[in-house]
Amino acid sequence: MAQNVNEAKPKSSTELAKFDALFPELVGDLTKNEMKNPEIADAFIWFKEVLHYNVPFGEKTSGVSVVTSYKHLVPQASEADMKIARVLGWCIELLQACSLIMDDVEDNSVTRRGRPCWYKKEEVGLTAVNDASFLECTVYSLLKKYIRDKPYYLSILELFLQTTCQTVTGQCLDLITGASGEVDFSKFTMERYSAIVKWKTGFHSFYLPVAVAMHMAGISDDESHAQVMPVLLQMGHFYQIQNDYLDCYGAPEITGKVGTDIQDNKCSWLIVKALEIASDEQKEALKLNLEDIYKQCEENSYQDCIHLIYSMDSVVPKTVFLDFVNMIYKR
Amino acid sequence: MAQNVNEAKPKSSTELAKFDALFPELVGDLTKNEMKNPEIADAFIWFKEVLHYNVPFGEKTSGVSVVTSYKHLVPQASEADMKIARVLGWCIELLQACSLIMDDVEDNSVTRRGRPCWYKKEEVGLTAVNDASFLECTVYSLLKKYIRDKPYYLSILELFLQTTCQTVTGQCLDLITGASGEVDFSKFTMERYSAIVKWKTGFHSFYLPVAVAMHMAGISDDESHAQVMPVLLQMGHFYQIQNDYLDCYGAPEITGKVGTDIQDNKCSWLIVKALEIASDEQKEALKLNLEDIYKQCEENSYQDCIHLIYSMDSVVPKTVFLDFVNMIYKR
Repeated sequence: MAQNVNEAKPKSSTELAKFDALFPELVGDLTKNEMKNPEIADAFIWFKEVLHYNVPFGEKTSGVSVVTSYKHLVPQASEADMKIARVLGWCIELLQACSLIMDDVEDNSVTRRGRPCWYKKEEVGLTAVNDASFLECTVYSLLKKYIRDKPYYLSILELFLQTTCQTVTGQCLDLITGASGEVDFSKFTMERYSAIVKWKTGFHSFYLPVAVAMHMAGISDDESHAQVMPVLLQMGHFYQIQNDYLDCYGAPEITGKVGTDIQDNKCSWLIVKALEIASDEQKEALKLNLEDIYKQCEENSYQDCIHLIYSMDSVVPKTVFLDFVNMIYKR
Repeated sequence: MAQNVNEAKPKSSTELAKFDALFPELVGDLTKNEMKNPEIADAFIWFKEVLHYNVPFGEKTSGVSVVTSYKHLVPQASEADMKIARVLGWCIELLQACSLIMDDVEDNSVTRRGRPCWYKKEEVGLTAVNDASFLECTVYSLLKKYIRDKPYYLSILELFLQTTCQTVTGQCLDLITGASGEVDFSKFTMERYSAIVKWKTGFHSFYLPVAVAMHMAGISDDESHAQVMPVLLQMGHFYQIQNDYLDCYGAPEITGKVGTDIQDNKCSWLIVKALEIASDEQKEALKLNLEDIYKQCEENSYQDCIHLIYSMDSVVPKTVFLDFVNMIYKR
């Protein structure tokens, strides 16, 4: 059942510009005073470079979604509150940058967002691990600076901490499933794949932005949050299948990275799907036309999301979810 | 001016036994329910091993100090509150285990606490980075479980987050001062050394345990905390000089690790002190009798601590600090 969702296409390009414009101010918040303290100035000169290299070049879908979601929830929001929504959006981008630096180290990746991975730079190396920890710290510095006096401070603080635990759990599943050295396809089930995606990406990149906007809008009860979670996790699932497909078949000049999933023996959608539908002989050869199969699955997954959005019961307007799904559809 | 501080020798061996006895219960809190969820059970089987290998084998000076400090502050503390003090002590040990795993990766260390570093184990490798993040997460899970309804929840939560930022700052200073490849002694000043120690070790291992106990005891004002900070940071300084000395001259069967400071070109006290007192010719040769010089500095540093303790103005009883300094003196 195809839905026409064009009316919900987000006007996010203006919002993206405003979102981007805030970043230099946040870098100032996070480094300016410290750079005046001679004891630690050198560390913060370094951290400033960490911020500039690793944070502002992502797609920013998750970060901007905080802002667009909040605007749908509180259409008459003040400019001061819109700024807070943008700060919280950047907090998600900072946490994501932290995870990506660590993932690249753990996966031995080469490129990210069109440039060498941070740890691959000659002067960086495994110092990158500490730099990732720094980026995680900045999230809590910004929360303290911008929302400490708000009623939703503790909820959002705990939400970020909780999400970090979920992401770490997903990353562990991912790492132990494709443990280097041994290629053991028996672990690559669609069930395991779905669990990795849900825990590593779903909570962080899809539930978190909308949940943050809901807390800001005063919607903090467990039931309201439980109602929106399934559709957001479904979007995360859809997004990750895309990602896995692009890791293998996407043009590096568009995706910004050279995929290493196959070399790294990762539990990618492509291999899981291939193993699911292949005959024994095909499994041997692994010569499947995955491109057509992907296109079909992409369409199905998208329709699943749309269906969930129209059938769900929630105080949150459907435009929040339609905007979000359209930001990631057919990138 | 030597002080007789023997009366303050802590009766920490009994407390250490009680402290150790709590660890299995905390491992259960952190893994039991998750291991029943088939989606993520494999991750938590892994994390359980991470906890067992990396957490309970330290000296536990910082962790136990929360308990002994709290007991001095609230001598009539209930058994329930003593248990909370032990949980918070373990939170510090967990955070420390997290830092040590990451430091070992960043420093390319070989052994820790008498066994191979976690990342050096064949089945682990750089998965260790994610495991360190997991250990950090456990701190906030335990705080939420044990003290969420206490008036000091937010203060202690923010204190742990703040301390993590300070430790990361110190680790950055350490890494950029001894950046691999280039041996540049001009960066190895006593000033830089003191800054690294203060930020990397002082706040985390010395201020944090006492500050946690103070918050538990209802002492949360900034002034009281500012009063106790200098002596605790001085203890951290003393402790780190010891550590650096032992890294080079300590017997590995006692220290539990093969020191790599010299190989890693670290800004260690030994090299900083040597450069400070050496003539130009000696600098070339670097043949100094550092052992005697260390013994003298150790004694001076200890007396500085004792002097600070007796001259400070604080609501916190002096026994808190005397106990702590005696735990680390002449290990």
